[in-house]
Parts: sequence; C-alpha cells; structure tokens
Amino acid sequence: MSEAFDAVDVIIAKRDKKELSDEQIRWVIDAYTRGAVAEEQMSALNMAVLLNGMTRREIATWTGAMIASGERMDFSSLSRPTTDKHSTGGVGDKVTLPLAPLVAVFGVAVPQLSGRGLGHTGGTLDKLESVPGWQAALSNEEMMAQLEDVGAVICAAGSGLAPADKKLYALRDVTGTVEAIPLIASSIMSKKIAEGTGALVLDVKVGSGAFMKNLDDARELARTMVDLGTDAGVKTVAVLTDMATPLGLTAGNALEVRESVEVLAGGGPADVVELTVKLAEEMLEAAGRGGEDVRAALQDGRALDVWKRMIRAQGGDPDAPLPVAKEREQVVAERDGFLTTMDAYAVGVAAWRLGAGRARKEDPVQAGAGVEIHCKPGDQVRKGDPVLTLHTDTPERFGRAKEALSGGIEIGDAAPEKTSIVLDRID
Amino acid sequence: MSEAFDAVDVIIAKRDKKELSDEQIRWVIDAYTRGAVAEEQMSALNMAVLLNGMTRREIATWTGAMIASGERMDFSSLSRPTTDKHSTGGVGDKVTLPLAPLVAVFGVAVPQLSGRGLGHTGGTLDKLESVPGWQAALSNEEMMAQLEDVGAVICAAGSGLAPADKKLYALRDVTGTVEAIPLIASSIMSKKIAEGTGALVLDVKVGSGAFMKNLDDARELARTMVDLGTDAGVKTVAVLTDMATPLGLTAGNALEVRESVEVLAGGGPADVVELTVKLAEEMLEAAGRGGEDVRAALQDGRALDVWKRMIRAQGGDPDAPLPVAKEREQVVAERDGFLTTMDAYAVGVAAWRLGAGRARKEDPVQAGAGVEIHCKPGDQVRKGDPVLTLHTDTPERFGRAKEALSGGIEIGDAAPEKTSIVLDRID
Repeated sequence: MSEAFDAVDVIIAKRDKKELSDEQIRWVIDAYTRGAVAEEQMSALNMAVLLNGMTRREIATWTGAMIASGERMDFSSLSRPTTDKHSTGGVGDKVTLPLAPLVAVFGVAVPQLSGRGLGHTGGTLDKLESVPGWQAALSNEEMMAQLEDVGAVICAAGSGLAPADKKLYALRDVTGTVEAIPLIASSIMSKKIAEGTGALVLDVKVGSGAFMKNLDDARELARTMVDLGTDAGVKTVAVLTDMATPLGLTAGNALEVRESVEVLAGGGPADVVELTVKLAEEMLEAAGRGGEDVRAALQDGRALDVWKRMIRAQGGDPDAPLPVAKEREQVVAERDGFLTTMDAYAVGVAAWRLGAGRARKEDPVQAGAGVEIHCKPGDQVRKGDPVLTLHTDTPERFGRAKEALSGGIEIGDAAPEKTSIVLDRID
Repeated sequence: MSEAFDAVDVIIAKRDKKELSDEQIRWVIDAYTRGAVAEEQMSALNMAVLLNGMTRREIATWTGAMIASGERMDFSSLSRPTTDKHSTGGVGDKVTLPLAPLVAVFGVAVPQLSGRGLGHTGGTLDKLESVPGWQAALSNEEMMAQLEDVGAVICAAGSGLAPADKKLYALRDVTGTVEAIPLIASSIMSKKIAEGTGALVLDVKVGSGAFMKNLDDARELARTMVDLGTDAGVKTVAVLTDMATPLGLTAGNALEVRESVEVLAGGGPADVVELTVKLAEEMLEAAGRGGEDVRAALQDGRALDVWKRMIRAQGGDPDAPLPVAKEREQVVAERDGFLTTMDAYAVGVAAWRLGAGRARKEDPVQAGAGVEIHCKPGDQVRKGDPVLTLHTDTPERFGRAKEALSGGIEIGDAAPEKTSIVLDRID
C-alpha cells in the first residue's frame, strides 16, 4: 500500500459526520484524479457530503485541492486590472455578452472563461457561436493579447484548469449529487481562482429557473463562495438576483445575441439593462475602478464598439445577419387579464426542447431556436394576444415545447406586485 | 430509452428523504444486476439509504427484488420440516457446528448454507475445511439427498441465490456502506428466504466483536429481519446474544472444530453449550417440534453420531486428527487479580493476523492458526498465569497479533458482574 489513506476510512468519517482533515481531503481529490479512488467511492463520499455538509475549512481545502489538480493562469503581466463575473445559470441570462465589453470600456480587463449549456439553462459559448465566424477556442497567448488589446475575452475554458472538477462534475451529474452547496461552491470557485482573476462578481440566481430555488439556500451558496474567493485573495462580491421569471424577452442562442446587441446599442429590455449596469458597477468597484457612469457607455456607443472589436478578434462578423429559425408558432393569452406568472423553468425547458439546448454534451444546438417573449408579469393582456413566439428548425418539436409551458403561464384579474431583479448583496 | 426509470431520479428521491415506490425499487435492483444502473449510481443510492433509512415496506420490496434476481430452492418434497440458523457473525462463534447435527437428531432438517470469513470474524466453511477430506461444495441434488438421509448439511451457498446481493455486497464493502441496517437485513434475509427454509432463528450478536456495537441497533436489526421473514412466510425468531467477549475458549479454524466436537461429546465450555441448547430449542420450536430435551442428545452421543454422518457424507473423516499449528506463544497475566475484560474484537483481530482469517477473498487461511483462551472474565488469575496461547504456522505473525491484543485484556481487583449470554429475544 503506497497510498496515504484508505478511501473507505475517508468515506466512513464523512458518513459519520466527522470533519475531514486537510491531509485526507488533499489525498482524496488527488487520488481520485489519478484514478486511485474509484468512481463508486467518490460517489458515496459526494452523497455523504451532500447530506452531512462540510465546514468552511473543509470546503476551502477541497477547493484548493481541485485548483492544485491543474494549471493556474496569471494575468499579473497585463497593464490593466482584471475582473470577472460568474452566473450560477438561469433562463434568458445573456448578461455576459453586453457586460464584458461594457466593463472593458473603463480600462479593466475581463477574462470570461465560459461553458456550454446543459439542460434547461443556456451556455454563453453556444450563444456566441451563432455569430457567423466566431470561435470559442483561444490559446493562452491569444487570450492575453486580446485582453491587453481589446480588454474583453469570452472564450472556452482550457482543459488544464481544475481537471479534478471536470471529472467530479461528470460524476455528480449521473449520481444525484449536483445540488450540494459545498460541491457547487468548490466547483465554481476552483475554476475562477485557477483562472487568476483579480476580482470576481458572482450572480447567484434564485427561483424556479435556477439551481437555488429559495433565498436561504442562495444566501448560503453566495456566502460560501465569497468566503472561498476572499480566502484565496480574490476580491469577491455576490449579488442575488431573481430567476423566477426569464431575464429579458428572449431565451435561445441567436435570439439572445440579438437582444444583447440591443442593450449594447442603448436599448433592450429594462431588466437586462438594470442587471448589466448593476454587475458592471460591482465589477469595476471590485477592481478598484468604481464611480464610473456605466449607463452612459451603453448610450454613447462605447460598449458597442468594444463588442465589435471583441467579436472580430475571435473571427466573428458583428455586422453579419444572425441565423433565424425556419419555423415559428405563437402561444396566445387564453383570457383577458394581467400576466401574473411566467415560470423561468417552464420557458427554459421549452427553449431547450425547441433545440436551443442539449440533453447530452455531444449534442448540437440550433442557432435560431428558442422562445421570444412578448409580455412579462404585470403586463395587461387580452384573450388571443401573443404571449410567446416559439422558434425552431424542426416543427415536430413544437408539441413537447408547449407541454413544457403547461401551467407555467398564468393570467389573473389583478397585476402582481412589482419585484426587484436584485434581491440581496453579499460581500 | 427503454428503461422504466432514470437512476438519477431514484437516487434524488431517497436523497431527499422520499419513500421509493415498489416499481422504483424493483427496477433499480434489476437494472443494477443487469448493469444498466452503474456502480457509482448504486453507491450513491446506498449512502442515501444508509443516512436516510428505508420504511418497512421499502425494505421488504428491496429484499423481494434481490430474491427475484436469482433462483429459489424448495425443500417441500422432503419428509422432514426444515429449520435454519443465521448468526450475524462474531469471534469464536462455532455454534453452527454442534447445532446443525443436534437439531437433526429430532427429525428436523437443517439446510445450513454458509460463507467464508472476511476480516476479524471467522467463516463456518473455513472451520470445517480443517477436517481432513471435507468438501464445502454440494450440488442441489446432493444437498437434498443428505438432508433426507442425515438431516443436516453445512455447505457453500450456490452462486444462483440472490446474485444481486453478491454484487451489492462487494460494492458496499469498498464504499463505506456496510453498516446500514436496511441493507444488512435485506442482504441476510434475501439469501435465507431464497434458500427456502421453513423456519429461521437469527442469532444477532451485540458488542465489540460484532457489527452491532449496542443493544438498540441490534434490536432494530433483529426486528427488521424478523418482520422480513414473517412477511415472506418463514417462521422467524431472533435472539440477541453477547459478543463483547469471545464465545467459548477458541478462535480459529481447527481449534474451533475441536471445541465443537467436545460440545457434541457432552463437554465443552459452558457458554457454547448454553447458546447451542438455546438456539436448538428455538429452531425446533419454530419448526413445530418444541419441548424436546435437547441437552440429553449432547450427553448421550446422539448429536455426535449425526455429526460424524454429516462429515462423512461430505467426504470428511471425523476421526482423523485435526491440523495443529507449527508454533505457539503464550500471553500471560501481567498482575494478580480478576480478569475483567477480554475484548472480542481484539481477540478476533489477533486470530485473523495469526492466519485464521483473510484480508481478501482470494487469500488462503491456516487451518491450525488462532487463539486458545485459558481464562474468561470473572476468573481469578495470578501474575504469570497463561491467559492466551497464540497458534500460527508463521511465527513472524506473533508480533502484530500481540499488538492487536494491546488494551483488550484487563485485570482488576474485583470480579466483574456475571452477564448472561442471551440478552433478548424478538419474535
């Protein structure tokens, strides 16, 4: 036996609600990455962590062990400070697209390493790939050059960052252990800390369309991640934002790019603008560049200009027409009244089934597919008014998309109370 | 998707403390046996069951699904009723050896399907294999013929009984999920019900040398197993017996056979005789043949006669000398006083390290190795008196065996209170 510990002893310790030592945690993550701890052993440990929890120290060590499993990036040679944003994922959440160029306007570099969509939440890379010519993959050198020159990069995370997390996430996905706050927090923060950003703003989504269905869980996740970032020397802030209703008026790849460009051109839906401005202010503040008039850069074309340079730098044509789905079908109001509910999860699943998302990692996505939203909670509607337009290249998908929407759209006699998009802030 | 359920949904239901449906349980056991549910998925489900428990209905369905994974034996064509005993395992527990022939004296058939030892508890088949010529493997036809003719069989369980349990047990062993009462109960009872016995007496061990360290856990396990047997139409009774101290005066293979033959010849240690008689009375009562003078059959040679016929029927020579270990070493009393503690776990690990047990399934065992006990708690000792004799063919093992005994033998100024071997009875 050349191993320092026995996996069964580590599993039993957590199963019996004991605190794992730093040595045990570092060993188990390293041995799992090497294959010396089996998938079925890590799976049992994950379930014990989900049900029995981890202390702040255990989570910090676990996160550190995942960072140590791979390479770390270093932006210290850049002339600009760096700041990044991470969203825990929601429906219609295209904010990264206008946000990265907007923040770059003010001389702060945004190294946004992004992922693809899985399930009902969209992926930033899938959205940008609907821009003709745009490429997600950059070498580290290309990324550094673009950060120095343009100031904003949205690209695919290299496979060298936190490989333990990649293996662990694939396991959690098939073993019912995704929804563990210590595991979610360490997964996100290991990648963001390894990425080397100087400051980080976390957008923790709350509601039906998010991982966190209630405010208490979202606060605990936010607090855990802010502590991890702070302990690792990354200036970290979290905002908790509403995901009971889709963000903006589109969910889908090209549809969301179109809406993002509207925001960058000074227009766009009020909720997307509000969240983009709020997150930009937080990112600049965290990077030591607070107090700027962020909204002005959307109005006067400076943000749109950075967007175009960012798209061109990665091979895309920002002026080319975006793909459009071949088929459309409307969903209309079934009665007169006020829209009281538009459930984010229902809309997310509908967009996914229309072809905007994928069920398995290998699946392709349709650039033009998704859901266009014509009214939001609080709007008055008359029977027969269009509420949604569904877009797809494959019309046989309309039926299952409509099934997903069943019960997700409600019309009542009175307008619901207005709710704020930003629910809380944790630093 | 041709599968009726998704494994992740079943895991998440148990993780979130929901009761699984009969359909979910039957599917998951069947799909796991077929390989359609992966090891890492079953491992996560096992941990969720360990931490969140199962209802009586869930355990019954789980057990039924494991029985349905393989063949069932049927003893209804025998002219005798059948009765069996299962012990949850302890140190020095050789009771099966005198018990099976003793019960058979009274015209009741005992189909004792047994296992091998793993870890610090010995295995009945390993013990009997120290009898020259004796064979553990019998075909179903040979077993039936011996039950009709001799009335007692101790043999290896065929691989056709509850194959789901075999796969599940191997998984639990490496994932820290052995100690779950629903999983222990369903593992034992699926095999015993599939075996087809008409009545069953469970010897649930309690104390340091047993799985169940305290009486409450042992009662819960016993109650769960008695319910499972009763629901399946098997007349089932459990006795809870002490395993804080080794049973009898030997732990090891040939050493325990020798002691068993002493009991069958009307002698032997009082605790082994007491437990053998108690279990024989319970087995006969459960089979509808209660009220016999069991002890007389040990005194007058009838039980020994059935033993010899049973050994001969499986190729063994009951009159051949038993193997003896090449080397011996004594452990002596370190002071004058009364023996207050002889820890069953410590003695079990010592016997295992001397060569009586195995660390992995493939390892051989030494027939002569083990521990001979010269005094038990309550006995007065003088400094230098022999307390144990250690037996092994490989004297380099003495050192680690003595380490295992460290702290396990205590001598005090006063005799401890006498304790009973039988602690409780559940039917």
